[in-house]
Amino acid sequence: MNNPSTTYPSEHLKEFCIQAFTHFGVSLKDAEQAADVLSLSDLRGIESHGVARLHTYFDMLTLGKINPKPNIRIIRDKKSVCTVDGDNGLGLVVGPRANEIAMDKAAIHGSGWASVCNTNHYGIASYYSLKALERDMIGWSMTNTTKLVAPLWGAERMLGTNPISIAFPGLRNPPIVIDLATSAAAYGKIEIAKRKNAPIPKGWIINRQGEMTTDPNDMINGGALLPLGSERELGGHKGYALSAMVDILTSVLSGANWGPFAPPFALRQEVPSQSVGKGIGHFFGAMEIDGFMDVTEFKKRIDEWIDAFRKTKPANGRAKVLIPGDPEHEEEAIRRKEGIPLLPAVVDDLMDISKQTGIPFT
Amino acid sequence: MNNPSTTYPSEHLKEFCIQAFTHFGVSLKDAEQAADVLSLSDLRGIESHGVARLHTYFDMLTLGKINPKPNIRIIRDKKSVCTVDGDNGLGLVVGPRANEIAMDKAAIHGSGWASVCNTNHYGIASYYSLKALERDMIGWSMTNTTKLVAPLWGAERMLGTNPISIAFPGLRNPPIVIDLATSAAAYGKIEIAKRKNAPIPKGWIINRQGEMTTDPNDMINGGALLPLGSERELGGHKGYALSAMVDILTSVLSGANWGPFAPPFALRQEVPSQSVGKGIGHFFGAMEIDGFMDVTEFKKRIDEWIDAFRKTKPANGRAKVLIPGDPEHEEEAIRRKEGIPLLPAVVDDLMDISKQTGIPFT
Repeated sequence: MNNPSTTYPSEHLKEFCIQAFTHFGVSLKDAEQAADVLSLSDLRGIESHGVARLHTYFDMLTLGKINPKPNIRIIRDKKSVCTVDGDNGLGLVVGPRANEIAMDKAAIHGSGWASVCNTNHYGIASYYSLKALERDMIGWSMTNTTKLVAPLWGAERMLGTNPISIAFPGLRNPPIVIDLATSAAAYGKIEIAKRKNAPIPKGWIINRQGEMTTDPNDMINGGALLPLGSERELGGHKGYALSAMVDILTSVLSGANWGPFAPPFALRQEVPSQSVGKGIGHFFGAMEIDGFMDVTEFKKRIDEWIDAFRKTKPANGRAKVLIPGDPEHEEEAIRRKEGIPLLPAVVDDLMDISKQTGIPFT
Repeated sequence: MNNPSTTYPSEHLKEFCIQAFTHFGVSLKDAEQAADVLSLSDLRGIESHGVARLHTYFDMLTLGKINPKPNIRIIRDKKSVCTVDGDNGLGLVVGPRANEIAMDKAAIHGSGWASVCNTNHYGIASYYSLKALERDMIGWSMTNTTKLVAPLWGAERMLGTNPISIAFPGLRNPPIVIDLATSAAAYGKIEIAKRKNAPIPKGWIINRQGEMTTDPNDMINGGALLPLGSERELGGHKGYALSAMVDILTSVLSGANWGPFAPPFALRQEVPSQSVGKGIGHFFGAMEIDGFMDVTEFKKRIDEWIDAFRKTKPANGRAKVLIPGDPEHEEEAIRRKEGIPLLPAVVDDLMDISKQTGIPFT
């Protein structure tokens, strides 16, 4: 790392985010909610989705592209399932509310499922699946995102990195937290390589002709990310299918913009040629563990699963097999004590917000 | 292909399967159900899961390892969710019944979810998701299977190829049918390469030390398949996480044997050292489309999605982007007319069943 980072207490950053959101007329309750999502992302070490994104939300709110006072409501409903319209609110507010609707349904009907339209980017997918654990539920979370990924054998961006998250609680052990983008690699990794002028592994991207390349510029200049599996031989059709699944559950089913028509997250991104719905889409699910099995028995079984997988004979040169969520869990323990390290560029962004709004940031 | 295959009418093979199952005291209704699953697999060109497996079911029934007259019942229930005990019946009978329970729940509660224990291998995952389409529902299907796959950075088999299927109906267009194993490659491909003494692509398997190798014998001699994504750099942790998700939803949640403890499908396979539950596990889900959106509107939106993705600019050297389910759909159209081609080894297996039971096969 050539960029020395400065460390800030998590609560300090969260307070700054709350003030930035309320500056635009977001209610205090909603601002606290939105800041909570960004904060957890930074705490879990997923820095790309934390305060590093605050300036983008700031830009969208400044230009009136996001509604600071959304009327989030169920527009169609049948017992355990529903469609939610987010009224073009912050995804960081619409997501938590729709997730709550799914969980409230689960408390009544055994499971609850909400497909959400007319919303915006919602932060880390695992924020939502983790919430379900607090209510002894299994939580699911998906979202579509701005196009970056080509379907297998395609030469253009048609899908987002469309993440899937699901979480399962342990009793002694921390939960298993699955949170994965359905692309082979994150866009952030391509940007880092470009800045360093370094080649990237084969299998991450294609150029604008649809050919695999190791030059990050080829992706940025009209190429695309590859789906998980990368090429046909290694299962690239599977990553494409998973991304399609997320796109359909979040956006075809809710009435949002699917695939290449998902509106951009940031101002610098291309605006789609056509609109096929409202905003982007999310999908949340919650299942009451108690409807399937005694909750404590399930948690004990998860503990046993974790213990058995930790004991897997490691591959040559590897220390051990990890459990999904381990790296984020470890990072969170450190950052809750030591604070959040921010890169100079992120600090500059926050200072800029401070200058424009008068909210103190030191 | 060096093995000339003989073609049989689908109905002929199905009838043979029905008689083989009833030979062991399986009821006619259950035998028809089981044969229907195998038949659809052959029709859709997924030959590994069709009559090619009949001899394995035959062996298990002969030895009394599968219960021909199971009492399949809900053992825990809360409105839209439940756990089903398959009473060690054929997966080809327990699966369809549990899937029906999920769909019946969806008709009442908007969605229905069944985690299933004490069951056996259930055929192709997409048989179940396709059934939901007949009732204007979105169908989900997962199963765990005998261990073959190493978690990322592990050197031993801990998970099955644990497939996920989900299907979405079109109006004009055939449905989108996603059905994918969460491993990078199918075990059948390793066996074929071994027979040909040919190397396989890097990323499919590891040897018993956990090192990637292109020699299929390394996998068969104590190595393992790799999860989708193959290695850390290309997202192997994601394929591992997806396989873990399937294992937990199907087997930790239902009380079945999870991970390395899943009992073997075939007699030649190693019996696990320990039992942590009953049989293997499935997970079925059904969601009423009408609970989210007008059914016809949804189907039209799926049509538009399909049309847009078919029009993706193709990669250099590729004719077009496929829609998940396209190859199986095309194969089914041909095979319904022309019959099912069977390899000599499969015909020999069926002849052997014929000889042992007196059921005619010509």
